[in-house]
Amino acid sequence: MSDFDRMWSDLQPVGRATTGGYRRFAWTAEDHTLREWFAAEAQARGLDLTQDRMGNQWAWWGDPDRDGPGVVVGSHLDSVPDGGAYDGPLGVVSAFAAVDALRARGFQPTRPIAVVNFGDEEGARFGVACAGSRVISGAMTAERALGLTDADGVSMAEALRAAGRAPDTIGRDDETLRRIGQFVELHVEQGRALADLDPATSAVAVGTDIWPHGRWRIDLPGTANHAGTTALADRQDAMLSAAEVVLAARAAATANGCVATTGKIAVEPGGVNAIPSHVRLWLDARGSDQQAVRATVSAVEEAARGLGGTLTEESWTDTTRFDDELSGRLRQILGEQTPMLGTGAGHDAGVLATAGVSTSMLFVRNPTGVSHSPEEFAERDDCLRGVDALTAVVEELASS
Amino acid sequence: MSDFDRMWSDLQPVGRATTGGYRRFAWTAEDHTLREWFAAEAQARGLDLTQDRMGNQWAWWGDPDRDGPGVVVGSHLDSVPDGGAYDGPLGVVSAFAAVDALRARGFQPTRPIAVVNFGDEEGARFGVACAGSRVISGAMTAERALGLTDADGVSMAEALRAAGRAPDTIGRDDETLRRIGQFVELHVEQGRALADLDPATSAVAVGTDIWPHGRWRIDLPGTANHAGTTALADRQDAMLSAAEVVLAARAAATANGCVATTGKIAVEPGGVNAIPSHVRLWLDARGSDQQAVRATVSAVEEAARGLGGTLTEESWTDTTRFDDELSGRLRQILGEQTPMLGTGAGHDAGVLATAGVSTSMLFVRNPTGVSHSPEEFAERDDCLRGVDALTAVVEELASS
Repeated sequence: MSDFDRMWSDLQPVGRATTGGYRRFAWTAEDHTLREWFAAEAQARGLDLTQDRMGNQWAWWGDPDRDGPGVVVGSHLDSVPDGGAYDGPLGVVSAFAAVDALRARGFQPTRPIAVVNFGDEEGARFGVACAGSRVISGAMTAERALGLTDADGVSMAEALRAAGRAPDTIGRDDETLRRIGQFVELHVEQGRALADLDPATSAVAVGTDIWPHGRWRIDLPGTANHAGTTALADRQDAMLSAAEVVLAARAAATANGCVATTGKIAVEPGGVNAIPSHVRLWLDARGSDQQAVRATVSAVEEAARGLGGTLTEESWTDTTRFDDELSGRLRQILGEQTPMLGTGAGHDAGVLATAGVSTSMLFVRNPTGVSHSPEEFAERDDCLRGVDALTAVVEELASS
Repeated sequence: MSDFDRMWSDLQPVGRATTGGYRRFAWTAEDHTLREWFAAEAQARGLDLTQDRMGNQWAWWGDPDRDGPGVVVGSHLDSVPDGGAYDGPLGVVSAFAAVDALRARGFQPTRPIAVVNFGDEEGARFGVACAGSRVISGAMTAERALGLTDADGVSMAEALRAAGRAPDTIGRDDETLRRIGQFVELHVEQGRALADLDPATSAVAVGTDIWPHGRWRIDLPGTANHAGTTALADRQDAMLSAAEVVLAARAAATANGCVATTGKIAVEPGGVNAIPSHVRLWLDARGSDQQAVRATVSAVEEAARGLGGTLTEESWTDTTRFDDELSGRLRQILGEQTPMLGTGAGHDAGVLATAGVSTSMLFVRNPTGVSHSPEEFAERDDCLRGVDALTAVVEELASS
């Protein structure tokens, strides 16, 4: 198992900021270093390295075109701004480690096996998550992807060109999709659900679904006025409305057993001595139950309307179920004590499941539940039990 | 009085945005147009145009160095972003109109009279209000002023140079200050205090003081985490804390009879799907009573501390009293029915009063109280009564 540790320490310095957090964004120098690392790991194992039409990297053990479709494991290597070390890389490193474990025990697969590195999963640079899997599965058109711009106004087309790729070659890639028999993405858990279960049986869980989730924009009106001379009674202060909506969102989520977050706000005019004339606030809401999420959003909308505001849906995704049969097989392989877990986070596994690929996930316990933060963590023992689980899963799936 | 209307309509288009609001910022093309307008008005009346060491414009009727110090009236011509037509220009236009009225009736002043246009009163471009009066009175050093930068990173020194002025000539200007016997600034009221009084006697008020006021920064901690996977109970969400502080500030101001505003907020990391790990919020608080303002801020600080946050004072200004004797004279001139009014807004009059100049103000009724907004308004009749009042004041002061 020392190869897991070696890979882990290889990746540790790449894109790490002085904050301790990672900044590994699509098509940057850091991303390039990570892709070279992936290619070198593939080469060191004699795997066939290919890139699909979006530049996602695939390292094949066996020939998927002759003997496929194959069993695909892996995840992504990019990060959110000041993200943690585990979200993404744990899945890729565990996938290579599983291949190593299978070879060490002389396993002869009857079906090809691949390790995948999906690009731009976090969407940190261009604002759309899972761009790599979305483009190859056709969920996002090449035209839309290429037109996305980063904070500096650089389009994805320009970023691709700067990284030495031809933007006009990207797009839906049915050939690549056909090679995937099953996709199992191992990922660090991003909450504390496993940490709250029996420690003896909760190091690894099988994923069942991605929660329904959406994003809403809330506009709250006010009246521009002087902060020093306008009596409180004469004010229509949009910031007060925003404060009420923020608290209403938390209350509604609590009442409905969902999660709701207001992480972004824009205030006009935004001066210290100016009464806010407009606040735009964004709501992210998710939960295991679709009706409950809808009820939460309705309650927030009611609060906004009561303050003269509006709520506009920017995106909505129904529950994404993984392949129940595949998830059931994973649980059989890992034992009936294995927890089954839905997740509130998006993943490339969800994009592929929506595209009709047989997909499931494995989650490795996170003792604090912290994610998207430098404090993100999983115990080494739990990571190694994740590798064991993935190894067992690949062995079984690649034998049938 | 038709000259008032002509000047008013001259100024109307200058720097007016498609929003209907004004964008007249220091040392811009719009500012240059306004300064040329001022110079032309001075020339048309045969007044002596001078500029002080900060470029503030003075139009003298008579020789202040031989017969001074003189009676100074006027205000400023710049605006806040999307400001109204009255804040500033009403004082300058009324000052010229008062000179016209005095001349029309053949008034022979025994002391010199000046109309002044203070530059950069709003501080909209470089962030410090009353830069023109602060620099000539020594309240702000030339070094600090020149180093201020606008949103594009342009320093005031560069802006002055681009406007054809030599930055190294700016600074405290005792010669200019010595010429001012009294300064009376007429200004549109920026609240509804006069509109709530007896309409027959409340078109114009005499200013008594500028309320104590200050600015505080509030830092509220949270924990970065994933918005989809982190249970509500496991969150430390800085945005919720901010919402509570916003509402606490309003409640404290209400309880203490002050005004409090939270017009600016900065959220980290600021992503729609990221739980805020830090919120910085700014508080502006003012009131007629210093103890009441301090009590308001203490209550807000207590709320912030209860949430693990801190409150830091960025600025504080005690009550600025105008010259009580001068204010009393103004009321005598205008009649005992004239309301006396403190203000929560800063003015060049306050800066000069602090510098020891004998200073007072006149306020013209604002029917809605709206200011710093395109909706800012005063009835024409009230504006003309303001001119009458200013004319009477200048006649009396320049005769003694």
